[in-house]
Amino acid sequence: MDLFLETGMTQFSALANLVNHQIRLASRPVGMPSDANWNHTSEPVTAPSEGGVVIQTLALSLDPAMRGWMNEGKSYISPVGIGEVMRAGGVGKIIASKNSDYAVGDFVSAGLGVQEYLTLEQDAMKRNGLVKIDLRAGSLTQWLNVLGMPGMTGYFGLMDVGQPQAGETVVVSGAAGAVGQTVGQMAKIKGCRVVGIAGGQAKCDWVVKELGFDACIDYKASPNAVKDGLKAHCPAGVDIYFDNVGGDILDTVLTRINRKARIIICGAISQYNATSAVQGPKNYLSLLVNRARMEGIVVFDYADRYHLAVTEMAGYLKDGRMHSKEDVVQGLNNFPQALLKLFNGENFGKLVLQVAQD
Amino acid sequence: MDLFLETGMTQFSALANLVNHQIRLASRPVGMPSDANWNHTSEPVTAPSEGGVVIQTLALSLDPAMRGWMNEGKSYISPVGIGEVMRAGGVGKIIASKNSDYAVGDFVSAGLGVQEYLTLEQDAMKRNGLVKIDLRAGSLTQWLNVLGMPGMTGYFGLMDVGQPQAGETVVVSGAAGAVGQTVGQMAKIKGCRVVGIAGGQAKCDWVVKELGFDACIDYKASPNAVKDGLKAHCPAGVDIYFDNVGGDILDTVLTRINRKARIIICGAISQYNATSAVQGPKNYLSLLVNRARMEGIVVFDYADRYHLAVTEMAGYLKDGRMHSKEDVVQGLNNFPQALLKLFNGENFGKLVLQVAQD
Repeated sequence: MDLFLETGMTQFSALANLVNHQIRLASRPVGMPSDANWNHTSEPVTAPSEGGVVIQTLALSLDPAMRGWMNEGKSYISPVGIGEVMRAGGVGKIIASKNSDYAVGDFVSAGLGVQEYLTLEQDAMKRNGLVKIDLRAGSLTQWLNVLGMPGMTGYFGLMDVGQPQAGETVVVSGAAGAVGQTVGQMAKIKGCRVVGIAGGQAKCDWVVKELGFDACIDYKASPNAVKDGLKAHCPAGVDIYFDNVGGDILDTVLTRINRKARIIICGAISQYNATSAVQGPKNYLSLLVNRARMEGIVVFDYADRYHLAVTEMAGYLKDGRMHSKEDVVQGLNNFPQALLKLFNGENFGKLVLQVAQD
Repeated sequence: MDLFLETGMTQFSALANLVNHQIRLASRPVGMPSDANWNHTSEPVTAPSEGGVVIQTLALSLDPAMRGWMNEGKSYISPVGIGEVMRAGGVGKIIASKNSDYAVGDFVSAGLGVQEYLTLEQDAMKRNGLVKIDLRAGSLTQWLNVLGMPGMTGYFGLMDVGQPQAGETVVVSGAAGAVGQTVGQMAKIKGCRVVGIAGGQAKCDWVVKELGFDACIDYKASPNAVKDGLKAHCPAGVDIYFDNVGGDILDTVLTRINRKARIIICGAISQYNATSAVQGPKNYLSLLVNRARMEGIVVFDYADRYHLAVTEMAGYLKDGRMHSKEDVVQGLNNFPQALLKLFNGENFGKLVLQVAQD
């Protein structure tokens, strides 16, 4: 939408005509978030000071971690305050610029928030992770998936914490999700046997047929599906487990790990809406028996190497060794409902909220 | 007791006069072991084949791990079979030898079992961990403590898995126990701040005054003792936690760890007699938030480097930088009761069963 060129208005006078619709955190959820936790607001788009830019949100990344940001209390990142625009990473387009590094029409990735426009002052650019993105390396939605935060999480979690060796067996839960698809495909490229865990036959089929995993276990198929599936598909045990879910699945995998196994703790989506205490891994003493380790990863630690992972995986996307799947929901106002898809496992692929068409 | 020299009999004819009292596993305990789980038996001492030796047990190491060996099921070592002599490491003296490497009168360490004598054939020597010990490096009981398996466990767990850096804060539970006293003293020698956790004021006082820990938290003092103690004594957070106990204490320490913390999982004595499921660490997601790792250690993996740790720590014992404390119970038949001291925290120092006087 090249509003400004078409109308002939200057980029800044045009801003006054724009309304920025936003979704703000109204209250902290107990258990699963509901509509009552959100406020829909709108405000004018303001012009930036010298050095700043205005970004139009095109698509937002919907991530399990958002649930954690809605809680009070110390974590790897501060919580979203009550009344604040909900935090979200996204991709967008520069529509006004007082910064010579960013031209109107440039595509960027940044912490945009769940809103249609973001006026970003120069001193906040780094904090918001503003970077230009190159649509020749991947599509807008791929920049939220394998080339974005989830892809970086999967890449560095697997490569740096997991340290896969060719021939090892890698298991990843949330296999059809954004992080899972990156982990599994990278592990295949590095010569590992890869077994996914996902919910439903359709996801499992896709993970095996489209992404090339060696097998995928549908954890919903039966109460013993994970246990039986690991026995069947990991005859040599599990060397690396990339955990996105926690809970019973983590406990079951712990019974199948090999000596010196590495368990990457990336998330615990099964526990994020728990209203009682988190379920700790009761089989954690398997770490002792197997001299194994369980280690957490936070993607921000690898920011200075994102560009290397992007370059490598953009190459795999281009030569067909990697594929990506995004589950795109349309419209800012659908954010509250769309987010829930993550927690009931309804999303099939990286969940993206499309806010505007480019 | 130099039986053979005194009587003038040959070493082998003398064996026929000896009765080997033994304690065998009669049944697998549910929860805390009881007298009903043990059989007291006796049998003649047999002469070894060519290459073998006969060892008289002097003292046995009583360890929390014994509880695990009494259970059925796969672990880092096979369970003790019903009817078998209970597995135990110990120190003893060669009283008969058909092996030129071992002379009558040599002191040795080996897997002796809970019995007065062990006839060890040559092909079983390595499997039983038979090694000569030098009483100039440490006393018999120190060879079961800081110079024995617990010492090796503490040394390699701290040094190899924990990788302490001077100035870091190290917390160790079971601080007055065999492993704990080694961990804490080694960490002090390496320049760390060391905070112990132990049960009762006497143990805490000893750990601070005799071993030189910076502080020790009496976990029995109040329900919040560990939480409050860590706040008070670890103002810069916890970099290394050496866990011998599991359960609530592990969970509490997890709330105080620093970025890139290392948690060494050495044992979980609070859970060994649990009749319900093991209590998993419900705060394990602190590993994620803090990019921390939790890693298991099994001492046997370091067997080829035991001699280096023994040499180093024998030096510290000699120059006074390390101290040791053993809690010595007398008499083979007291094994069943003595073992329980470990699980109710009654032992003060490394628990040793003295079977015979040298």
